[in-house]
Amino acid sequence: MTQPEPATARVSLRRMTPVQLIFLGFLLVTGLGTGILMLPAATAAGEETSFIHALFTATSALCVTGLTVVDTGAHWSALGQVVILVLIQLGGFGVMTFATVVGLIVLGRLSLRSKLLAAAEAKSLGLADLRSLILGIVKISLIVELVLTVILTLRFWLSYEMTFGEALWQGLFHAISAFNNAGFSLFNDSLMQFVGDPVVCLSMAAAIILGGLGFPVILQLRRRYRTPRLWSMHTRIVLWATTVLLVGGTGFILALEWSNPATLGPLNWSEKLLASFFQSVQTRTAGFNSVDISAMEPTTWLGLDALMFIGGAPAGTAGGIKVTTFAVLLFILFAELRGGAAVNIFGKRLSRAVHRQAISVVLLATALIVLVTGALMHLTGLPLDQVLFETVSAFATVGLSTGITADLPAVGQALLVLLMFIGRVGPITFASALALRERRTMYELPKERPIIG
Amino acid sequence: MTQPEPATARVSLRRMTPVQLIFLGFLLVTGLGTGILMLPAATAAGEETSFIHALFTATSALCVTGLTVVDTGAHWSALGQVVILVLIQLGGFGVMTFATVVGLIVLGRLSLRSKLLAAAEAKSLGLADLRSLILGIVKISLIVELVLTVILTLRFWLSYEMTFGEALWQGLFHAISAFNNAGFSLFNDSLMQFVGDPVVCLSMAAAIILGGLGFPVILQLRRRYRTPRLWSMHTRIVLWATTVLLVGGTGFILALEWSNPATLGPLNWSEKLLASFFQSVQTRTAGFNSVDISAMEPTTWLGLDALMFIGGAPAGTAGGIKVTTFAVLLFILFAELRGGAAVNIFGKRLSRAVHRQAISVVLLATALIVLVTGALMHLTGLPLDQVLFETVSAFATVGLSTGITADLPAVGQALLVLLMFIGRVGPITFASALALRERRTMYELPKERPIIG
Ligand SMILES: [K+]
Ligand SMILES: [K+]
Repeated sequence: MTQPEPATARVSLRRMTPVQLIFLGFLLVTGLGTGILMLPAATAAGEETSFIHALFTATSALCVTGLTVVDTGAHWSALGQVVILVLIQLGGFGVMTFATVVGLIVLGRLSLRSKLLAAAEAKSLGLADLRSLILGIVKISLIVELVLTVILTLRFWLSYEMTFGEALWQGLFHAISAFNNAGFSLFNDSLMQFVGDPVVCLSMAAAIILGGLGFPVILQLRRRYRTPRLWSMHTRIVLWATTVLLVGGTGFILALEWSNPATLGPLNWSEKLLASFFQSVQTRTAGFNSVDISAMEPTTWLGLDALMFIGGAPAGTAGGIKVTTFAVLLFILFAELRGGAAVNIFGKRLSRAVHRQAISVVLLATALIVLVTGALMHLTGLPLDQVLFETVSAFATVGLSTGITADLPAVGQALLVLLMFIGRVGPITFASALALRERRTMYELPKERPIIG
Repeated sequence: MTQPEPATARVSLRRMTPVQLIFLGFLLVTGLGTGILMLPAATAAGEETSFIHALFTATSALCVTGLTVVDTGAHWSALGQVVILVLIQLGGFGVMTFATVVGLIVLGRLSLRSKLLAAAEAKSLGLADLRSLILGIVKISLIVELVLTVILTLRFWLSYEMTFGEALWQGLFHAISAFNNAGFSLFNDSLMQFVGDPVVCLSMAAAIILGGLGFPVILQLRRRYRTPRLWSMHTRIVLWATTVLLVGGTGFILALEWSNPATLGPLNWSEKLLASFFQSVQTRTAGFNSVDISAMEPTTWLGLDALMFIGGAPAGTAGGIKVTTFAVLLFILFAELRGGAAVNIFGKRLSRAVHRQAISVVLLATALIVLVTGALMHLTGLPLDQVLFETVSAFATVGLSTGITADLPAVGQALLVLLMFIGRVGPITFASALALRERRTMYELPKERPIIG
């Protein structure tokens, strides 16, 4: 007979929903990362980092946000930078997907429970192809990161004054940071020195866009790139929306910043185009910058706010409300204006349950951003345009900044930590994890409609 | 045999949808008002008013917004002020409802066509009680305006240095302006001189709240005030949401402006409470002010933006996306978080068609406000917080201002005219009027769902 185990702890862990476990995983890894980053050995100067700065950096890395309160290249030692890189890679894979992968390697098989967990994390819609999905995620991540590391290393080594070792470290760091849409950079002005370098900018942009498409789309493209008519509604929406937003964003930035002497003004037209395209890509939600964000027109900030808020595709390394949410809302709007009974997208009818999800995501995201923006304005007296840019950037895990984050009071930075965390976990996931258990209503109530608008 | 009539003009008018006719009615009355206001006789100085200023004033009055580009009390002659008052009353009734009433009086009966028109305008949900609805609207408007005129006239005459004639004109003007949520005032600082006067503030607040409840609610309260269990979902939502928003708004303003020396600071606590309540009422969307809006904290502006955006109840004199839209979105969110299948409100199930309407209204409103805000910022270089306040105020037909509207360039004022117009007509109505005819899809397409958020 086996000894009865102490039941309480195990049972309460088992009682937790997948969502609550993901939540817990994020918190544990953040705590661990914060602890290591606080060590003197993690900094270049060998001094201890304050709790809030270490917490902010760990959260920003794990949530692949890229907002910083200290200079990543100058403040952290090699150890610190490696910790940040590991957190980024963990964050990109998804903490729980990663745990599932480890289980897969160690046990050679997956329990139904870890399958459910990873499915919730990767937002896969079925369990059948989960094993191949996760293996696919790892394989694709490593391949893209490897290719980009080679390109960046060679370019840094051959065309810029770096030793091979320097170039390799910079290449690896920026490759991982790019594919995972993290936006951390070891250069103190992000990528501003490469504003006119198509090799660096375009190769990074490609990796960022790929990561921002999300793994379901990447896997489907790999399997069915010859037969577009078999693509799912999800893949079609993501590809269309990404294209429209990239082109629109490029045009918008080009038009508004064309003659701004502090941004695009001094560049020739091809550099202007490259810089606008690169900056447009960053709103999907990588967060590097090759021009000075703080010097942009406030109107440009407002446009970037909108692009960052929309973000990239789900189940990948991007943040924001997601392009699918945005597209679904637009299709609902068009259906309402045309008076059609069903919402049809690319020849398929949109499931009604999706309407409610889309509204909920946008509503929670907006409420959070407005609340934190108000709180930060009240705390600091900073103007709305800068504060809003920072909160949208934090929520959408973008990491672009008008330069105010490092100077915020600790409470303000803590609010951004919360926003990055909720933004990466997803506002609905976050709220559900906190929510009480549902009391199922088994009967339907009589229907009624109030007057809208 | 009857002579065949010239068919083209009549047929094309008959072909117009009710929505397009309402649209046309608004445009015609605005044009007429603009024309009269441009006459030298309409100004105190006897000089011609510029087209854009006359257009802005006429639109602001007809859309019961209350934003101004000239001083209403000083710039306009008695004729000009009467024109503004007539436009406000027309706007409050609703141009088409008014036309229906005239038809009712002249012809003694209503054609089905005018019934449909008035129903679309008043957002009534059936045709059965339309005649009594319209008579009720007229009766209630006149009674409330009469009572408020008497109270204000007596107060102005007895407690302020005004002759009886002056007091009567001021009382009448502010009574009509209040019940119709117009916010036009003949005093050059709106109601700042009455900040501590409970008679003026509370009587006006009562009329504003009543107008902001919308006629369907008022009529139901009048008929069934003893039997709340018979109230419709619509009435319950409106009453609850209005109460919560009024109390919340009062607390918010009180907390943020408590010690601001330029607003609540110098007042004693009962005056602070009165002023906060009064200002909270104004966001439902009357737009008078008893404290200096331009001196408020930018964080207060942000909170007022949210309150103004939500606005009042439909089918009344209020603007904004409407409290019902906001409440419906919240209930959808709660249902989504709890995982319930249906959205239940006060023991009734919410019709699914309403989900789509609510999203569409909010989406169009947000897009419009962001676009015009961006355009105004680009045109003027003014900061986001002030521009956003002004555009939300214009869209939600509130009329509160941080003081930038009068100094905007003509293009900027024209953009606000458009925004006031769309805000009053309703973004969905506006978009539908422009939309092409629907191609009905008679079959249902196969269902599919993309990944959200
Ligand atoms: K990022
Ligand atoms: K108003």
